[in-house]
Amino acid sequence: MVLEKIKDPSDLKNLKISELKTLAQEMRVHLLTVLSKHPGHFAPNFGTVELAIALHSVFDTPYDKVIWDIGHQAYPHKLLTGRLEVFDTIRQTDGISGFLSREESKYDVFGAGHSSTSIAAALGIAAARDVNNDDFKVIAVIGDGGLTGGMALEGLNAAGDFKKDMLVILNDNQMSISATVGAFSKHFHKLISSRGYNRLRSGAKELVNFISSDAKALAQKIESSLKPGTLFEEFGFRYFGPLDGNDLESLIPVLTGIRELSGPILVHVVTKKGKGYKPAEEDPEGFYSVSGQFDLDTGKSLRPSSATPKYTDVFSRTLIDEAKQDSRIIGVTAAMLGGTGLDKFSEVFPDRCFDIGLAEQCAVTFAAGLATEGLKPVVAIYSTFLQRGYDQVLHDVCIQNLPVIFALDRAGLVGADGPTHHGVFDIPFLRSIPNIVSMAPKDENELQHMLKTALSYEIGPIVLRYPRGTGLGVKLTNDPTPLPIGQAEVCREGGDLIILALGNRVYPALEAAQTLSETGINTTVVNARFIKPIDKSLIVGLARQIGKMITVEDGALMGGFGSAVLETLASEGLTNVRVTTLGVPDRFIEHGDVETLYDRYGYDTQAIIRAGVALAVKS
Amino acid sequence: MVLEKIKDPSDLKNLKISELKTLAQEMRVHLLTVLSKHPGHFAPNFGTVELAIALHSVFDTPYDKVIWDIGHQAYPHKLLTGRLEVFDTIRQTDGISGFLSREESKYDVFGAGHSSTSIAAALGIAAARDVNNDDFKVIAVIGDGGLTGGMALEGLNAAGDFKKDMLVILNDNQMSISATVGAFSKHFHKLISSRGYNRLRSGAKELVNFISSDAKALAQKIESSLKPGTLFEEFGFRYFGPLDGNDLESLIPVLTGIRELSGPILVHVVTKKGKGYKPAEEDPEGFYSVSGQFDLDTGKSLRPSSATPKYTDVFSRTLIDEAKQDSRIIGVTAAMLGGTGLDKFSEVFPDRCFDIGLAEQCAVTFAAGLATEGLKPVVAIYSTFLQRGYDQVLHDVCIQNLPVIFALDRAGLVGADGPTHHGVFDIPFLRSIPNIVSMAPKDENELQHMLKTALSYEIGPIVLRYPRGTGLGVKLTNDPTPLPIGQAEVCREGGDLIILALGNRVYPALEAAQTLSETGINTTVVNARFIKPIDKSLIVGLARQIGKMITVEDGALMGGFGSAVLETLASEGLTNVRVTTLGVPDRFIEHGDVETLYDRYGYDTQAIIRAGVALAVKS
Repeated sequence: MVLEKIKDPSDLKNLKISELKTLAQEMRVHLLTVLSKHPGHFAPNFGTVELAIALHSVFDTPYDKVIWDIGHQAYPHKLLTGRLEVFDTIRQTDGISGFLSREESKYDVFGAGHSSTSIAAALGIAAARDVNNDDFKVIAVIGDGGLTGGMALEGLNAAGDFKKDMLVILNDNQMSISATVGAFSKHFHKLISSRGYNRLRSGAKELVNFISSDAKALAQKIESSLKPGTLFEEFGFRYFGPLDGNDLESLIPVLTGIRELSGPILVHVVTKKGKGYKPAEEDPEGFYSVSGQFDLDTGKSLRPSSATPKYTDVFSRTLIDEAKQDSRIIGVTAAMLGGTGLDKFSEVFPDRCFDIGLAEQCAVTFAAGLATEGLKPVVAIYSTFLQRGYDQVLHDVCIQNLPVIFALDRAGLVGADGPTHHGVFDIPFLRSIPNIVSMAPKDENELQHMLKTALSYEIGPIVLRYPRGTGLGVKLTNDPTPLPIGQAEVCREGGDLIILALGNRVYPALEAAQTLSETGINTTVVNARFIKPIDKSLIVGLARQIGKMITVEDGALMGGFGSAVLETLASEGLTNVRVTTLGVPDRFIEHGDVETLYDRYGYDTQAIIRAGVALAVKS
Repeated sequence: MVLEKIKDPSDLKNLKISELKTLAQEMRVHLLTVLSKHPGHFAPNFGTVELAIALHSVFDTPYDKVIWDIGHQAYPHKLLTGRLEVFDTIRQTDGISGFLSREESKYDVFGAGHSSTSIAAALGIAAARDVNNDDFKVIAVIGDGGLTGGMALEGLNAAGDFKKDMLVILNDNQMSISATVGAFSKHFHKLISSRGYNRLRSGAKELVNFISSDAKALAQKIESSLKPGTLFEEFGFRYFGPLDGNDLESLIPVLTGIRELSGPILVHVVTKKGKGYKPAEEDPEGFYSVSGQFDLDTGKSLRPSSATPKYTDVFSRTLIDEAKQDSRIIGVTAAMLGGTGLDKFSEVFPDRCFDIGLAEQCAVTFAAGLATEGLKPVVAIYSTFLQRGYDQVLHDVCIQNLPVIFALDRAGLVGADGPTHHGVFDIPFLRSIPNIVSMAPKDENELQHMLKTALSYEIGPIVLRYPRGTGLGVKLTNDPTPLPIGQAEVCREGGDLIILALGNRVYPALEAAQTLSETGINTTVVNARFIKPIDKSLIVGLARQIGKMITVEDGALMGGFGSAVLETLASEGLTNVRVTTLGVPDRFIEHGDVETLYDRYGYDTQAIIRAGVALAVKS
């Protein structure tokens, strides 16, 4: 095994290309073995095996800085940088991260999880290098999807202006999470087809003969054999490519030559998602990530399919049903068609569904534009990615009070994807914006009613946030009914204690109440339903009457729902009410199994029971 | 007067070009008359007079939709769309807005204030038109600065992909607030110089002869006479230009022809900021906006220069002093060099100051990159514009706990610029992010100490927020000293009431306490200094002892500083404490004089007194 001998990238330096090819093969086998047992990002990592080998062979990492955009394609990089032995813990509770992390390794120069940050970060590192009179190389590796994000384009624009020595590698696999959309992507296609990609592939291989000779001569040879790409030249970059990014015999000599060049340089490599594993090559979208065990030969999942639908599925089906009745309903997303369930909507209503690409800012303001014309845009987006559109929600939607519906999928802790992906900030960052209504369903049936509520609410922006994963298996309705705006639901009554629970915390609250009642603590459980407007009269009335309250939410406590409750009580001048707020504490939460994390951070059923007992014993 | 006869754009339709030229002249005189008396955006509006006339002449507004980016250059549009008579109330309390507003006029199709939104909004409107089977035209007008913002590029990318019929007018004056930076801008320069701009100017004029003839023939003539611009073609747009945007004889025929074309089209017009007023033509940056009366002949300000420095000036001078001692200090901004005072820093340290252009996202992550290399980046940015970098603050800076300093200028109400510019959301949106320290100075002297505190704090991100405008005239220090993190300052002691004031509300709190003492209410006044970490032991101790507390802040109450105080008290299980929170209520605040607004929204000195009396009388 070559792979076992790679303790760090310096062990690559003396390997022949034939050995590196063997290494690539071994890495694919290892990826396949681990990922067929443990969930993780799949196809992107099979595409970047050779790129990771080439970068760590040609550059002097970690002295030279390689910044991987997003990081979900950096598993091969992890295998080469001392994490082989712990690789089978990836994305599991207390295991290594599925993304890059500065805490995890000195080779992880800049952490990520969200896309399109690498060029800006690399430019900052290059600028710092020059201020500090250092001389390392800086390399950003970004996908064709990530490059369409606004901040990547801002980065290109600034980098082309500052003229720092830096290298951007465009890892082009024509796919972000689903197929990359946008004019930019068409440009890449054109480059690939118009420039005699296959001819260049073989041309680049000839360069291997130059490696041992003078580096400058190699650089010149490369410049003359690869032609510039107009778009990047206009941004002030020298363009090289397209190259076969799965071919070490092309990559290594080209990167070796380009290493010697100065100024901003872009190398366009074409990689194949799922490369080397046939089921994934044939269905890269299905293998974008894998969520459980599958059969190695067929690629078919071995996980019994759950009878319980996901929240995403219920959202998708309900939206389709409603859109059949109301032609004004429009689906909008930002490169998350499949993840949000809008893929199915788009099949039924192709002319009423818009995927803006990896561009949350544009997606939100696009929806605002739709709303000015009387349509009902439903922006389906992950909670964590709406962070990218914060100013657009505030400035374009809410100041103008436009009726845009935000369906926030993966709100709350998401589990294995960790701190960059937990959707725990949407409550505080949205709650402080005027004009917005926001709500969270206790289960997938209530999600249906809340979607109906949103579609019926035509006077301003409205948000529904729901968790990642399967619902609770409750009965679904064929006739969703709008809920009264700002009205909570009393689920259980008791005179000793109130538990005011939000969203997916309602059922744990009910379980806790049951246990508490067995110890003689009679508990009122309220399903809050609305974060804003909050049900002031109900909450104030109960607080006045019972005087002891627990709030519980799957979101950040600072400025969150519990904080809204405290504001409400203070505004009424209520004293003598004891309130315990449960939810995500003021720290970033690591990746891990969500039930473990609810327990660890004190807002699962047991934690609610403990808080209830503690409150009850106080006078 | 032609201008007086223009009640709405339909009155333009029958005017000859010679009359339109007279109109342009009259509009400039009117702008000059009003703006030499009242503050407002200046030079950008002198550049867009002919463009506004041409658009409203050629297109059938408001049926056809013109979306002006930002809106600060839309005063000529306001003069032509029924707002001539109220124009002299612009930006004043209860007067018309200095930006566009859907509430103000049906001709203001999409409001703005922040840049780079127009293409996304226009694309949404165009998509809605097609869903609704309407047939109006959609036109976005965006500056060369605004076009470098990430979301504008996202918009171009999506628009080039969707192939909707829409027109983007690039209003190129080579200047955003200060000179436009970035590779993109150089591309525009190149287009202007390489395409025989002067030849095309005269060529376009010949087109006027075609106006009365067949529109299709005109369109063809335009296509053959103006050549494509590579960059925009790559984005999927047909490019026309560059044209002289101050020449009605070019603009009107070209727009008339282009109106008939389909698909995404970009027209590049070159306008002159300050056009027609010599002092502004010569100093467009100085005349970007005017802040008081000036002499019409010389352009010199008639306002006595204040002896009291602005907060911005104190920040700038202190940063320069510190940077002389510490070579690791780096300035970073996003097209706000002058506004943040970094222009002076950049003169002293040209190699240690980076203006990223109108690209807040990139600026924040660029700074994160600098910080990974051991530098001390100071991101100087207006509070309202940091909204654009929210995800980058969270994902790139705070998750990685990088020591980036954010100097938030114009925090709190900003006055005449209104709802899009009030910096009232930074407290809630930053407070819920883990790892961040944030503070607000009571005066410009404390700003110096807080900047020193930030520069001395090297273990994570730190924010200081300070208001727009002049300080209080307090004595400045030559020796700023770091403050203890998380420690508040007791300014005055009294046993009946606590006023916990933040930032610019400390002095009003002290005045209120003085008045209250005269009515027998003895008040403790605390300068909070830190929003996070909050001074828990002091606040809890005082609350336990005194039991009545007012919090007051120049920011949104929902999730704000007062809310942090309530969370703190609840976490300690304190009951029997009455808290009144004063600050910005849950609504967008209109433009107007800030003192008027503090009064109107109940957090000026008088409001604090009233709240104090009300609390004191309660048992």
